[in-house]
Amino acid sequence: MKEIIDDIFEREGSTLITDVLVGGKRVDIAIDETGTIVEIGEKNGVRDVIDIDIAVDGSESIAIPGLVNTHTHAAMTLLRGYADDMPLQDWLTQKIWPLEAHLTGDDVYWGTKLACLEMIRSGTTAFNDMYFFMERAAEATDEMGIRGTFAHGFIDLGMEEKRETEIKATETLVSHIKGQKNPRLTAAVGPHAVYTVSPEGLRWCAEYAREQEIGIHIHVSETEKEVVDCVAQFGKRPPALLDDCGCLTPRTVAAHCCWLDEADCRLFGERGVNASHNPASNMKLAVGRAMPYHHLREYGANVCLGTDGCASNNNLDMLEEVKFAALLQKFAWNSQTLLPAEEAIRVATAGGARALGIGSGTLTVGAPADIVLVDRRKACATPLHNADSNIAYACNGGAVHTVLCGGRFVMYDRVVPGEAAILKGAAEAAAALVCRAQDAS
Amino acid sequence: MKEIIDDIFEREGSTLITDVLVGGKRVDIAIDETGTIVEIGEKNGVRDVIDIDIAVDGSESIAIPGLVNTHTHAAMTLLRGYADDMPLQDWLTQKIWPLEAHLTGDDVYWGTKLACLEMIRSGTTAFNDMYFFMERAAEATDEMGIRGTFAHGFIDLGMEEKRETEIKATETLVSHIKGQKNPRLTAAVGPHAVYTVSPEGLRWCAEYAREQEIGIHIHVSETEKEVVDCVAQFGKRPPALLDDCGCLTPRTVAAHCCWLDEADCRLFGERGVNASHNPASNMKLAVGRAMPYHHLREYGANVCLGTDGCASNNNLDMLEEVKFAALLQKFAWNSQTLLPAEEAIRVATAGGARALGIGSGTLTVGAPADIVLVDRRKACATPLHNADSNIAYACNGGAVHTVLCGGRFVMYDRVVPGEAAILKGAAEAAAALVCRAQDAS
Repeated sequence: MKEIIDDIFEREGSTLITDVLVGGKRVDIAIDETGTIVEIGEKNGVRDVIDIDIAVDGSESIAIPGLVNTHTHAAMTLLRGYADDMPLQDWLTQKIWPLEAHLTGDDVYWGTKLACLEMIRSGTTAFNDMYFFMERAAEATDEMGIRGTFAHGFIDLGMEEKRETEIKATETLVSHIKGQKNPRLTAAVGPHAVYTVSPEGLRWCAEYAREQEIGIHIHVSETEKEVVDCVAQFGKRPPALLDDCGCLTPRTVAAHCCWLDEADCRLFGERGVNASHNPASNMKLAVGRAMPYHHLREYGANVCLGTDGCASNNNLDMLEEVKFAALLQKFAWNSQTLLPAEEAIRVATAGGARALGIGSGTLTVGAPADIVLVDRRKACATPLHNADSNIAYACNGGAVHTVLCGGRFVMYDRVVPGEAAILKGAAEAAAALVCRAQDAS
Repeated sequence: MKEIIDDIFEREGSTLITDVLVGGKRVDIAIDETGTIVEIGEKNGVRDVIDIDIAVDGSESIAIPGLVNTHTHAAMTLLRGYADDMPLQDWLTQKIWPLEAHLTGDDVYWGTKLACLEMIRSGTTAFNDMYFFMERAAEATDEMGIRGTFAHGFIDLGMEEKRETEIKATETLVSHIKGQKNPRLTAAVGPHAVYTVSPEGLRWCAEYAREQEIGIHIHVSETEKEVVDCVAQFGKRPPALLDDCGCLTPRTVAAHCCWLDEADCRLFGERGVNASHNPASNMKLAVGRAMPYHHLREYGANVCLGTDGCASNNNLDMLEEVKFAALLQKFAWNSQTLLPAEEAIRVATAGGARALGIGSGTLTVGAPADIVLVDRRKACATPLHNADSNIAYACNGGAVHTVLCGGRFVMYDRVVPGEAAILKGAAEAAAALVCRAQDAS
């Protein structure tokens, strides 16, 4: 594969991946110059479909659709390892929030560059982001070549003045992202949660999302306290409150969803909500309960997967997250058969693509060519009785060697352009951020 | 680092690792020709201690002690992905046991070669193995250069004739391993569990281990059914029964330990038992409860870590297991502070070394030079606010680039000698095993 690496990141045009394992069969995949899969199947049927500009030997690889990280705070990579293993309130008030108070747009740029690097290396081609300075997050993502959905974290704490500020910040971001006219960058509205956003704020978010035809990204029922407090304050559980405010739609991504009861799951199913499972974060922060995946599936909600931010995970490796999801579901709900390997991969790919509105998230004709090649020449892929099992349970993001997003190479044979500079820039930004916070305290 | 790679796996002698990060400080580590750490500290104090044959630049690395996998069935790598996501009894009776019935010594050799390759790649320098054809497992491990403790899985099902066979197999293995006089290979007695070995069998195992001055490796209280059945049959819980039979000693490694109650933990503490936590396996097989780590720690039992076999994990990556352990403990016992990063790494290194009697499992003068170098030039190690956090929560085995066992290099700059041949041999053995099982059914 080495001979074409020099210009592969610059080359546009059509691409053929030959002899690659998909769903247990060796196939060729043809991608046209618009970045769409135009043929997939046994090789003789594929190679005549288009003129090929770039051919990649897939004979030592397994292909899966790009992984979609449906809940993260990408720039929190800069906080990775800054504080762990503390009681939640101390951790937030003494460590995370004081540091975040000193975040700049440049920090978010470098944190998101690092996040994209890490996501690309582990096979993620799209992510759903909520944080601050999101114009800079979008800039970083555009440079890295993957897809991002960006929401300003909207927090009004019931104060009208703060709400007006958040409304303005949201409108500015949405208009900025839409103005880019970049098919890889989309905007969403990001009401943080029912305990940080008033019903008035939630209603504005729902209405604005509807007007703008964009998604909603929100934390829902992460902790028992959130549910108990919501019932005490509003007389109903978070999903019902959100539904009253118009926030439950087929374009809503609800993160965590640990403390949903069966009626909540039914409501999610009826509204077509996308429930983002974040198992590693939920375990690390000891939220006490796992998402009731079985009920969400039963009632037809779309379940997808996310890593959460790097302060509570502490990485963005979606294949590791697939394993955490498949194992946590089994453990928490006492079932050896819940969320099997193939289904867990589907949740992390097709489930995420549906949640973010970026195609089918499958390797089929007409789908965007968001494609991940996993190396078969690894211990984790040996033996290869069942590729889905190897990918879900044995391999992690380290087995990914090549990634395409919209038909363009963002990693080829483990090379991501500019990696050393990104690692350096992000490390320096993180160190400077800590210094600023310490100087101020 | 490239210039010395050609003969680094053959070279014997003293080694200096320069400028490497250990416990937040940059140090040099000097290793003498016997494979012992003879000095560690700031560079000027170290470089004069011995004449150096091999110098390795550690300036882009974090050093940790070798990881110790205290419960596995190494050759089950051949079954990786063969069957998953099934009800436990169906999985065992329809899939795992029928395949294992066709296992040969050659299969165990290739499965163990693959296991050692995988363990080396992810920083494991010693493992505690229980399976069949263990002479071949020891042969494979010796070739790969790491440490193994080998127990024949002793199962008498209460039948005297079977017990005699198992006694003979155990004696043969122990005498074979001892005859090797290889300091990296040790033998143990491997009574499988209280539900597969009679009290007579357990007593023989305890007595034989005492006579031979070797360890005991046993599954304990993995499932609730095991505990309930033991109480029904013997009127006491598994730890009390094992104690009656003499099986609880400071050289006993008790795997799983999910369903220990507080009194069981106290008994383990009093007897100095080593409790091997196997979180990924326990989650995947939905055993319903996590090891009560807090009680075991409180009563002074030594807690260590293991992956279990690849049919129920499905890999041997101990850094991934560290994350599973630290997160599962928090989730299962509702504590954001239980098993913090530094402690989880200690469990996986010093805890394991103590369990298997292979030194302190620390990077200190006098310890065997079982040393793992983790690459700092990775997204998972960026930023580096706290190396323990990066290693426990963000990185996995893929960040390991160089491994020494007893002062000898077993991986250098991600190269393990003979890797391609091992992957090929193991894949062929696995495929042939499945064919034999299918032909016979």
